[in-house]
Amino acid sequence: MRKKIKTQVNVRTLETFDDAAKKLKQIFMELSANIANNNPAVMRIPLRTASNTVFDEKRDILTIGERASERRFNEMSGVRSFMQTCLLARAIHEALKHDDHPTIRDLYYYTLHTIEETDVETFNNQDESNNIFQDIEVMTGLLREQMGIVAESRGAMVGDVVLESRANRIDCSKFGIGAFNIPSLCDQIRILEVDAEYVLVVEKDAIFQRLNDYEYWRKNKCLLITGKGQADRATRRMVRRLNEQWELPVYVLTDADPFGWYIYSTYRAGSISLSYESFRLACPSAKFLGLSMTDLEKYEIPKDHLIKANEGDIKRARELLVKDPVTKIPRYPWFYNSKQWKQEIKLFLEKQVKAEIEAKSSKGFRFLSDVYLPEKISNKDWIK
Amino acid sequence: MRKKIKTQVNVRTLETFDDAAKKLKQIFMELSANIANNNPAVMRIPLRTASNTVFDEKRDILTIGERASERRFNEMSGVRSFMQTCLLARAIHEALKHDDHPTIRDLYYYTLHTIEETDVETFNNQDESNNIFQDIEVMTGLLREQMGIVAESRGAMVGDVVLESRANRIDCSKFGIGAFNIPSLCDQIRILEVDAEYVLVVEKDAIFQRLNDYEYWRKNKCLLITGKGQADRATRRMVRRLNEQWELPVYVLTDADPFGWYIYSTYRAGSISLSYESFRLACPSAKFLGLSMTDLEKYEIPKDHLIKANEGDIKRARELLVKDPVTKIPRYPWFYNSKQWKQEIKLFLEKQVKAEIEAKSSKGFRFLSDVYLPEKISNKDWIK
Repeated sequence: MRKKIKTQVNVRTLETFDDAAKKLKQIFMELSANIANNNPAVMRIPLRTASNTVFDEKRDILTIGERASERRFNEMSGVRSFMQTCLLARAIHEALKHDDHPTIRDLYYYTLHTIEETDVETFNNQDESNNIFQDIEVMTGLLREQMGIVAESRGAMVGDVVLESRANRIDCSKFGIGAFNIPSLCDQIRILEVDAEYVLVVEKDAIFQRLNDYEYWRKNKCLLITGKGQADRATRRMVRRLNEQWELPVYVLTDADPFGWYIYSTYRAGSISLSYESFRLACPSAKFLGLSMTDLEKYEIPKDHLIKANEGDIKRARELLVKDPVTKIPRYPWFYNSKQWKQEIKLFLEKQVKAEIEAKSSKGFRFLSDVYLPEKISNKDWIK
Repeated sequence: MRKKIKTQVNVRTLETFDDAAKKLKQIFMELSANIANNNPAVMRIPLRTASNTVFDEKRDILTIGERASERRFNEMSGVRSFMQTCLLARAIHEALKHDDHPTIRDLYYYTLHTIEETDVETFNNQDESNNIFQDIEVMTGLLREQMGIVAESRGAMVGDVVLESRANRIDCSKFGIGAFNIPSLCDQIRILEVDAEYVLVVEKDAIFQRLNDYEYWRKNKCLLITGKGQADRATRRMVRRLNEQWELPVYVLTDADPFGWYIYSTYRAGSISLSYESFRLACPSAKFLGLSMTDLEKYEIPKDHLIKANEGDIKRARELLVKDPVTKIPRYPWFYNSKQWKQEIKLFLEKQVKAEIEAKSSKGFRFLSDVYLPEKISNKDWIK
């Protein structure tokens, strides 16, 4: 049988670390030239605040607004953070030039020292340097991964997809009960071939392993991905790439509770405090497959299999439907603007029960893989 | 150049799930025959309490002692848990016969129901069924993985090691910047070839990725493993297998703080509450490579790179050197009986500072991989 292999689309030219190094250098050389010529040296740093978060209806994501702060070399109030920004940017540039891929924490220790002939520390703590690091991200428009900065990652993937990393061909259909561990700098991995019809993102690692054990991905022609709980950046980026570059629909499977919805929300849209990352990490067309509140009745989950919602659950559920008191825009527009989601959340608030995905096992250990998932997908029974 | 490939030793015959199914069946058929013949039907369940935890000096691990409780079919006080034990065991047996690999949570939902003609639930909650599940483990001597029960896993591995799972050959030297994601049922994976001189276990995933990025494992002929924080069972089992079956020394790299020591301790000896697992999961010859308190001076970590220990750190450090008030045996004999460890912990309590592994980056981003690690290992500068 001839393999139907998907074609890659929407790929911008692969960004290289050289491009990032050049961009960084250019911005800071300009500042330095201004200082040398006694011209005003001003860094323009878009505000990473809730009040500067806007919902881009066209792209269907939260993004960073137009407001920015200015950091000036010749103003006492800004000079310390000006120095810190330059110091960190230089360290990032050095790392890029030497093909080093430090973490943000490495950068902190690398740049931390007592300034000569003073008792002033370059940074008071890691929070301070993390903050400046994020300033550099928004100021340059380069996310950490584009600058080669490594973060912790957690995700795993299996299915008919062939990757390439450092001249190694990695076939994710040949791991048996194991899986591919998605690294932080996931854009450095090429996706060579995809033979799948959708991506199934699974909240829980144990469910991922069970579906892999049954070779669900082979029987249903899909890719299986888990972020092992709340998704890390690399897993989100991989999901986004498969959706954007390979046009695969993305379905998210979580417990039926507000935490599950929140995990879905992270894949779909990212977080408010990090809205400047959405343009690379969010996957706005991702659909919530279940468990939904209506599933509980439809699939006759026994009453004793449901768990009473606690105060935290109820609080979290209510938050999904509120507007920000400052901006007056909904905090989670993708929930707020969706009839289906409003209904789902209201049903939860009414019944005040939640359910784990494993509750499906009351109907047999293979009910989830052999009945529930194929049925939900073929019936397009999802929430978006 | 001819590859020097290690030979596997100490491998007992591979246990199969069939063996587990047989053993389970035999135990419970005997009980059922006793009930049918009006003989006393008694389950003997070794106590999983601190007071029944003993230190096996020969094997250098904590293990479960001789004391046991008895659970009788014909006593009112035991009949509910007798029923629960049979119910869960039957579910495990069914799963084994059908080649299903559920989680403990799946088992709970699978067996949870209202007992006919009563309003009594088989289990009141998951804690109750988890407890009974552990009883089955100690009663049968079969750990959950031997019974094919899947748990969450987190670990990753790279290096010159070739694995086999379901007829797939998995070469862990061909992942580029990615890695092999270690599955829960890691004993179902064969280790076919190993070309390495030691195993380096890294606490933090980001450090693991950075060392993989530099191909530390290739340059230093080792395998790199991370449990991404506190180790999961599968990662511990993989480390143990490489140590036991392939005679690879194991070195553990963590932050210089009591939490890092605790992580080391888990790889080395397991936890007190789960001492019955040590015989398969602990790796008593594992050595603590660093960061050690003496490293902080030896490698001239600047003072401003150290972090003040908090109350939690100090409390945890003190606990490592106490004896159990009931048993009068040290809670952590491997710390208590080691001069080196006592010195290390005392030095910490004296200075009350800790340090992150990334503090090494003050000497350059490659200091850890190019200087510190090779130097420590070639000088045998570790704590055991």
